[in-house]
Amino acid sequence: MEQPQHPDPAEADKPPLRIGMVGYAFMGAAHSQGWRTVGRVFDLPLRPELTAICGRDADAVRTAADRLGWAGAETDWRALVARDDIDLVDICTPGDSHAEIALAALAAGKHVLCEKPLANTVAEAEAMAQAAEDAAERGQVAMVGFNYRRVPATALARRMIAEGRLGTLRHVRVSYLQDWLVDPEFPLTWRLRRERAGSGSLGDLGAHIVDLAQHLAGEHLAGVSALTETFVRQRPLPAGATSGLSAQPAGSAPATGQVTVDDAALFTGRFTSGALACFEATRYATGRKNALRIELNGDRGSLAFDLERLNELWYHDGTEPAGGAGFRRILVTEPDHPYLHAWWPPGHGLGYEHTFVHQARDLVHAVAEGTRPEPSFADGLQVQRVLAAVEESAARNSLYTPVAA
Amino acid sequence: MEQPQHPDPAEADKPPLRIGMVGYAFMGAAHSQGWRTVGRVFDLPLRPELTAICGRDADAVRTAADRLGWAGAETDWRALVARDDIDLVDICTPGDSHAEIALAALAAGKHVLCEKPLANTVAEAEAMAQAAEDAAERGQVAMVGFNYRRVPATALARRMIAEGRLGTLRHVRVSYLQDWLVDPEFPLTWRLRRERAGSGSLGDLGAHIVDLAQHLAGEHLAGVSALTETFVRQRPLPAGATSGLSAQPAGSAPATGQVTVDDAALFTGRFTSGALACFEATRYATGRKNALRIELNGDRGSLAFDLERLNELWYHDGTEPAGGAGFRRILVTEPDHPYLHAWWPPGHGLGYEHTFVHQARDLVHAVAEGTRPEPSFADGLQVQRVLAAVEESAARNSLYTPVAA
Amino acid sequence: MEQPQHPDPAEADKPPLRIGMVGYAFMGAAHSQGWRTVGRVFDLPLRPELTAICGRDADAVRTAADRLGWAGAETDWRALVARDDIDLVDICTPGDSHAEIALAALAAGKHVLCEKPLANTVAEAEAMAQAAEDAAERGQVAMVGFNYRRVPATALARRMIAEGRLGTLRHVRVSYLQDWLVDPEFPLTWRLRRERAGSGSLGDLGAHIVDLAQHLAGEHLAGVSALTETFVRQRPLPAGATSGLSAQPAGSAPATGQVTVDDAALFTGRFTSGALACFEATRYATGRKNALRIELNGDRGSLAFDLERLNELWYHDGTEPAGGAGFRRILVTEPDHPYLHAWWPPGHGLGYEHTFVHQARDLVHAVAEGTRPEPSFADGLQVQRVLAAVEESAARNSLYTPVAA
Amino acid sequence: MEQPQHPDPAEADKPPLRIGMVGYAFMGAAHSQGWRTVGRVFDLPLRPELTAICGRDADAVRTAADRLGWAGAETDWRALVARDDIDLVDICTPGDSHAEIALAALAAGKHVLCEKPLANTVAEAEAMAQAAEDAAERGQVAMVGFNYRRVPATALARRMIAEGRLGTLRHVRVSYLQDWLVDPEFPLTWRLRRERAGSGSLGDLGAHIVDLAQHLAGEHLAGVSALTETFVRQRPLPAGATSGLSAQPAGSAPATGQVTVDDAALFTGRFTSGALACFEATRYATGRKNALRIELNGDRGSLAFDLERLNELWYHDGTEPAGGAGFRRILVTEPDHPYLHAWWPPGHGLGYEHTFVHQARDLVHAVAEGTRPEPSFADGLQVQRVLAAVEESAARNSLYTPVAA
Repeated sequence: MEQPQHPDPAEADKPPLRIGMVGYAFMGAAHSQGWRTVGRVFDLPLRPELTAICGRDADAVRTAADRLGWAGAETDWRALVARDDIDLVDICTPGDSHAEIALAALAAGKHVLCEKPLANTVAEAEAMAQAAEDAAERGQVAMVGFNYRRVPATALARRMIAEGRLGTLRHVRVSYLQDWLVDPEFPLTWRLRRERAGSGSLGDLGAHIVDLAQHLAGEHLAGVSALTETFVRQRPLPAGATSGLSAQPAGSAPATGQVTVDDAALFTGRFTSGALACFEATRYATGRKNALRIELNGDRGSLAFDLERLNELWYHDGTEPAGGAGFRRILVTEPDHPYLHAWWPPGHGLGYEHTFVHQARDLVHAVAEGTRPEPSFADGLQVQRVLAAVEESAARNSLYTPVAA
Repeated sequence: MEQPQHPDPAEADKPPLRIGMVGYAFMGAAHSQGWRTVGRVFDLPLRPELTAICGRDADAVRTAADRLGWAGAETDWRALVARDDIDLVDICTPGDSHAEIALAALAAGKHVLCEKPLANTVAEAEAMAQAAEDAAERGQVAMVGFNYRRVPATALARRMIAEGRLGTLRHVRVSYLQDWLVDPEFPLTWRLRRERAGSGSLGDLGAHIVDLAQHLAGEHLAGVSALTETFVRQRPLPAGATSGLSAQPAGSAPATGQVTVDDAALFTGRFTSGALACFEATRYATGRKNALRIELNGDRGSLAFDLERLNELWYHDGTEPAGGAGFRRILVTEPDHPYLHAWWPPGHGLGYEHTFVHQARDLVHAVAEGTRPEPSFADGLQVQRVLAAVEESAARNSLYTPVAA
Repeated sequence: MEQPQHPDPAEADKPPLRIGMVGYAFMGAAHSQGWRTVGRVFDLPLRPELTAICGRDADAVRTAADRLGWAGAETDWRALVARDDIDLVDICTPGDSHAEIALAALAAGKHVLCEKPLANTVAEAEAMAQAAEDAAERGQVAMVGFNYRRVPATALARRMIAEGRLGTLRHVRVSYLQDWLVDPEFPLTWRLRRERAGSGSLGDLGAHIVDLAQHLAGEHLAGVSALTETFVRQRPLPAGATSGLSAQPAGSAPATGQVTVDDAALFTGRFTSGALACFEATRYATGRKNALRIELNGDRGSLAFDLERLNELWYHDGTEPAGGAGFRRILVTEPDHPYLHAWWPPGHGLGYEHTFVHQARDLVHAVAEGTRPEPSFADGLQVQRVLAAVEESAARNSLYTPVAA
Repeated sequence: MEQPQHPDPAEADKPPLRIGMVGYAFMGAAHSQGWRTVGRVFDLPLRPELTAICGRDADAVRTAADRLGWAGAETDWRALVARDDIDLVDICTPGDSHAEIALAALAAGKHVLCEKPLANTVAEAEAMAQAAEDAAERGQVAMVGFNYRRVPATALARRMIAEGRLGTLRHVRVSYLQDWLVDPEFPLTWRLRRERAGSGSLGDLGAHIVDLAQHLAGEHLAGVSALTETFVRQRPLPAGATSGLSAQPAGSAPATGQVTVDDAALFTGRFTSGALACFEATRYATGRKNALRIELNGDRGSLAFDLERLNELWYHDGTEPAGGAGFRRILVTEPDHPYLHAWWPPGHGLGYEHTFVHQARDLVHAVAEGTRPEPSFADGLQVQRVLAAVEESAARNSLYTPVAA
């Protein structure tokens, strides 16, 4: 099917947006794909340039730069932040370094994109949100990487809810189910240590679903009641984790370490409107690989989404006569669906990584147009406050705990 | 496809099991279908006879008896219970009369089948369970009507879990979603009044999913943390509800009354093994008609079921190599599936009402063989204790509340 | 949920409709369930009585009568047909005896329900249709048992198509997939012998889908082009099949026999309107148990159905804006859906056997009201002509073959 | 989840593979995305360079080059083919120019990637296959762009079938359903003109499914029986189509033109092994956007795939006991699934365009390693012969028509 491209004739003349990225593992690769692709698909006001990436190992970062398409490489993020030829710092590191890097970058006058969760503590997140607010006065933009807002199907859901298609919201049920910790021999990576990751399923998966649920609902959680659990409390240290410290004698038991984060977090809550919510985040749902599922029920309709089928949004129009109504599967690939005008003909689905392209697109527009992008650092802080209320409730026998305003 | 019948040659010579049923609304019609059909499909040790039904309105109960296939009719349940020609009393009334009728029937030496929830209070349920225990000593059987244990797919799930197919259980998530209260003009029927129904979604839907979850898991809930809500607090009185009391003047506003039960109940919990559970029962999930959904994740596999597709059980075998694994849809219509040898060839699905046929089958066998059928009144009592813990937790700001042993 | 029954007060006073049934295997059991249940659920003008069934083995038929709920038993269908106390003859035998029994029953003044396919040859079917036409003049009704017209979802589909919801029809694709012949050791039952069954998948499965497709489309096939195949040509004789003839010596190879019918039939066709159709009937679709699937595409909308999920009808409204459109899953359990007012609340699904209850309901109404029920013997004849055209095309190198008018 | 990148340390030192692409519409954009991305994700032996693209309109092609990331632009494909700094010519034009360009490119010593269908006639395809064969002797590679072989799910299906997981193949049913021609006002684009497109649904969609079915089955079609149809025979000329010729007087009826290709093609066939196949290709399946569906049934198992859910492969293992068997949904996102080691963690799905990345990957390896890539031009020719047999059968009243060897 014909789908002509309508490129801007002045591509090469566009002002550049020079990116410096910190971290080049999973998120770094995904962000790189976003930055490389966005200007080839969308008609942007600025031309993103992959200026430099940063990592501690000089060889590895140089290699990653070559592979991922970055012009330069740095081994000290402070050096990256200090470079004059960087306009935007993209932070793809674990949560324990987000605050320090983001604050420095904002102080250096850079725009910032920071992976989620915004920080490992509310205090850090507060400082970051304040810094972002101050920087916004100086024309800098700051965004937190809740990329699942930018699946076309979730963006369409937000649009439909904003139009009133669900009416008064009654229920939000949302879960994020993975299964990569089911095997007790899976090693103790940084994601299982509180000092690096802040929390476990809660911060990794729960942060996504709290943000997405609030974003779609268009309102905040007022309070929560929570249970958390760590099913497997000792895990083998990752290969190489002991190297340089002391050799493990042949035949000795493998070294293990303590899992210091939650394996699963369940919580119920109330939205400010009175709608009820339930949340579940776990890495122990055998057979569920990336099942971020959300359903919202209002008195006029319902919507449902599953990230494992990310090109589909299910909609029930409750205002239709019951005899002809039903959940319909909207294949979110039509030109008038969010972000889709730039992609392929109807029915030609997108994938996970496209969320990063869309995130990059919206961020570039915000920079060029001087608008404040969403989700903001303030949004990231608010999610952090929900996570803190979850942990507090879990520590207090599930007592209903208000979310700090 | 050929499926020969293998009937017992002595059908007419079997001893009868003479049934008396109280109530003839929705549940009464469903139980009647069960009793009429069971001996035509299964090879039973006894021949069920639909001896008499009971209701307060003489004309209506006579008409219902004719329609539903009952030989006689009574207008006083005490008279029914007193009849010598009744072996088993089947109680299909609202929950507020369960205890009185069941206790009287057991005292009169009858076997008893009682609809769920067993009672409206723990105290009533305790008395009933004690009476059933005493009656069991005398050879009487008592069963509570958690019919969803007898969907072939759930019975297969129980069998697989008992075989160890899921391994150590980690998660149970279960919801029962309906939508018939979304319209605020839906009238204030007995199901919305605490004095008749005991509770709302909790007792109607929540009782089912608590029983099913515990039955499938093979263990009990240790404690729960709960939220409940009543979204619409005033509803119009049902047509005819004021008749005989005082005429409503023409042109006056329609009379309304207070909804005194929950519209929705959400709770999380811990099983005795440490597995986590989340429950949601609501009548406000627009577009969900009868969505009883349960998923169980263990470290060796997972199972999922949805009552709206009741002939299917989804199974993920976590012991297979990941590259070939996936949730498989078992069409639960094979001859070696529970109850299926008596029905149709593979692929010819059953419906909702078959659960009542299967319940009748198992109950007839228990009577004939002198075994104690499940779910017992003790099981019904235990569910009632969970519901009481849910209500207590909801009243105490969601504080985690142990289930009484 | 409350669903009051509204029974007719004069149930016992209704005139009887006295049924005599020939055959008591799979179809006989299903029809019995239909006859036993229909008057308990629907408010009928006549009261069906299960007067007698007929089979050749006296003991077996007596036992089946007891089990299935028939008052009497006969061993000669001619005797059954001759009985004065039989109003309607229900023919559940293999296809080779349909014509003889139906013609005799019609000649004896009986109403007739005949299982599909109507006959094993067009000539037989023509005689039957003519006899039915003549009998209709005398007030007798005759119906052929294409029960899949009476799944609520297919009945709803027909209603929607008749309302014009699909617009001009473009495509019909339909398949009926089973897998019970995949195992080459499955024995040579009567369904695999041309002299008994007439044809294989074609007459068994193909007849259903030809009837259903034409019924839903509201028009006939004009011509077809066909391929048929027999994958496994020799099969073991069924156990007992040689008994009475000669003992099989110990250690000898098991006796086998020739499969003389098709294993699979594929055909394309044109409807009279110009719409295109494709059909596939097979018993070799590993994993497909009873997958009768039909999809119809018109220029205003589409419908899709799968018998393995028989409570669902999928509808795409092509007149909606593309951005909000999608196939919706209508759960066909609402009170205003065909046949559903008499059953359970929304979301409480029906099963395979309910089609026979509905068939019985409509037939009773036709008898009482003197209307001509559908599908008529003429409809059955027309299907037979399509099957004959399929066989002719298959025999002539798939040459497009018009269906005789 | 952690997924470290393992980049080749010598990225910049790899020899280049310099690409010249002809055409920059839908396919051109998709191929560009493939070429830009492949070296960033996969570890390749060569470094693809987007050297130049070619189109007739100088401004438009220059703009497209900028947008899509190509260094240079040409307006004459002969000039492109003649360039010394081009190693591989990628042909993304309509089918009428494939032969001429491909033959010239091969003659010029270039490697060639040619979009499907290989050509508009068998004669052209024969010449191309011969030229490719000759060029292979000289070390040049040639591939035809049946990209749907390189969806991870279809590649996994091929692997499983090659391993014998389906056993003896009995059935292949495949359809490719789109709906963009339902509206009779959709204009008469080049895809609806035989002189440009060769055929309609047949060449556009049918070519894909013939190739995919044969590829997965691992064998060829022996013969086919076909029906084709053009539902809407006159369509409005596209806007601008008459510009430069003669002005259309104001108020005059819009100019229309003749649709000279098929709108839909249905065909049945036999594979060389005796397995039966049915095919349907249409652009009139209202609500189906890109529903390429294939199911294969063998005597040991079955596989099913739907392009609208391209990350899923459904597998039924027919060797398992029936009571535990069922179609399982394999989420084709595990590291050991085809192409997946280079992408994201399990459950993070890919999209349509990734097929072009994978195609590029395999082609680069073939060039570097001197192997012959598949699908070859000979494969493309063979598909063309099937399409020719389809057209011949359709023209001869669906007579079964052998596919030329």
